[in-house]
Amino acid sequence: MADLWQNAMDHGVALARRAGEVVREALLTDREVMTKSCSVDLVTQTDQKVEQLIIQSVREKYPTHRFIGEESVAAGEACVLTDEPTWIIDPIDGTTNFVHAFPFVAISIGFSVKKQIEFGVVYSCLEDKMFTARRGKGAFCNGEAIQVSGQTDVHQSIIATEFGSSRETDVVDKIFSSLRKVLCIPVHGVRGAGTAAINMCLVACGSVEAYYETGLHVWDIAAGAVIVTEAGGVLLDTEGGALDLMSRRIVAANSRIIAERIVKEIDPFSPTRDDAPPTL
Amino acid sequence: MADLWQNAMDHGVALARRAGEVVREALLTDREVMTKSCSVDLVTQTDQKVEQLIIQSVREKYPTHRFIGEESVAAGEACVLTDEPTWIIDPIDGTTNFVHAFPFVAISIGFSVKKQIEFGVVYSCLEDKMFTARRGKGAFCNGEAIQVSGQTDVHQSIIATEFGSSRETDVVDKIFSSLRKVLCIPVHGVRGAGTAAINMCLVACGSVEAYYETGLHVWDIAAGAVIVTEAGGVLLDTEGGALDLMSRRIVAANSRIIAERIVKEIDPFSPTRDDAPPTL
Repeated sequence: MADLWQNAMDHGVALARRAGEVVREALLTDREVMTKSCSVDLVTQTDQKVEQLIIQSVREKYPTHRFIGEESVAAGEACVLTDEPTWIIDPIDGTTNFVHAFPFVAISIGFSVKKQIEFGVVYSCLEDKMFTARRGKGAFCNGEAIQVSGQTDVHQSIIATEFGSSRETDVVDKIFSSLRKVLCIPVHGVRGAGTAAINMCLVACGSVEAYYETGLHVWDIAAGAVIVTEAGGVLLDTEGGALDLMSRRIVAANSRIIAERIVKEIDPFSPTRDDAPPTL
Repeated sequence: MADLWQNAMDHGVALARRAGEVVREALLTDREVMTKSCSVDLVTQTDQKVEQLIIQSVREKYPTHRFIGEESVAAGEACVLTDEPTWIIDPIDGTTNFVHAFPFVAISIGFSVKKQIEFGVVYSCLEDKMFTARRGKGAFCNGEAIQVSGQTDVHQSIIATEFGSSRETDVVDKIFSSLRKVLCIPVHGVRGAGTAAINMCLVACGSVEAYYETGLHVWDIAAGAVIVTEAGGVLLDTEGGALDLMSRRIVAANSRIIAERIVKEIDPFSPTRDDAPPTL
């Protein structure tokens, strides 16, 4: 069975690289279109194209495997994590960055069996950095082993987070209140790459000590989750318990000390779960 | 005279590249030191080394030119812009990023004559992107012409800003209040590279529509200023008037429309000017 997942992971890496080419190509050829008119169509188009490319190729090779993909869920498919082998795909993490050619855009592919992530692939395609991790086998960037920062002093830390896409007053209140408390711990700085997957890879390779966010989705974090833990990091819920992949809340950090320190400053809130039954 | 400044610019580009090598080398060899102990010494050491490398080389070639450098000013030298040819240097813009190997670190070299910036060089040394502009001659990244985004709808825009280094309540109040108003215009997103020079280059190459900040210094923005304007962008003060390089306040945008829209949302404040006489 071990070999099967290694083969699946190799396939995932190859697909992420092909997907990255499609994304870069779209940026080169369609940049003019994007900046001149409404960009929503192009994003959706490229997102769907990349997700279909990945799903079709996996389906040919592994006909019994399941999928959770951002675009498929948007099109009405269920978002439920079962014990079956499941590919969890974000075809373009950082769509706002993509539209603007802001240099952080990722293809994120996680793979779970019995609800546990077996491997993760995050391809930061404009930087050409391929982050990979397989459970129990370490984390890598372009083939070189990576590890989280050894920093245990929160005052010497950089924390990553995002403003999210909601502009509802209650949500923005919580996001700003948490952000201000984190900044004024005080920490060295606060950054945000504009993609959850790359923020998690920045934790994994030691450039930021922690990343937290509420409102993201399972396809944003599935691959990054195993990359962070295999690089020596820890994952928590924003209230401090164990991470729940479907809860849309995460703290990823280099250590339990830093993770728990950040949890203290977060005003938690609970968006609708990814696996909530559809409302009628 | 034109040839002289072109030669000076070529020299600036060569120096920025050499400085970038020193920075990358320091990151490779001293990363272990940085993450394990207090990083302040290493930063100061590399900052000073890079600034000295640039100043000494320029002085040999142009013995009458003046300098405004971050480290020299920190060491007590005057920070006054005269009519004389003046090199305005930030040896490492994004020192917090540097300490953490966060991928945006720049060497910034601006050159002014009669208080006007004649050329600017920003070398984003971890991305290996060399941004250059000479007054009246266009802006370039790695030799290719760049231009600002054509986006005129602020709702489709990404805005860059930073939290700055002050954690004083009054300052943080203003920064958060402005940030929230900008976010809730609403815009597509808010980002920050962690360096003013690279934020300005992101405006110049069209990845963000505007960048604003209060509290930065003339050496952070001198080179970026001409890169933005030569790429077709505009520079304003945070209260909407003309940019004053010494005022520590800036709005850089792809257009006057976007710049003025951002100005509306900023709660202005006035840090001590860069050219203020020293207090006794």
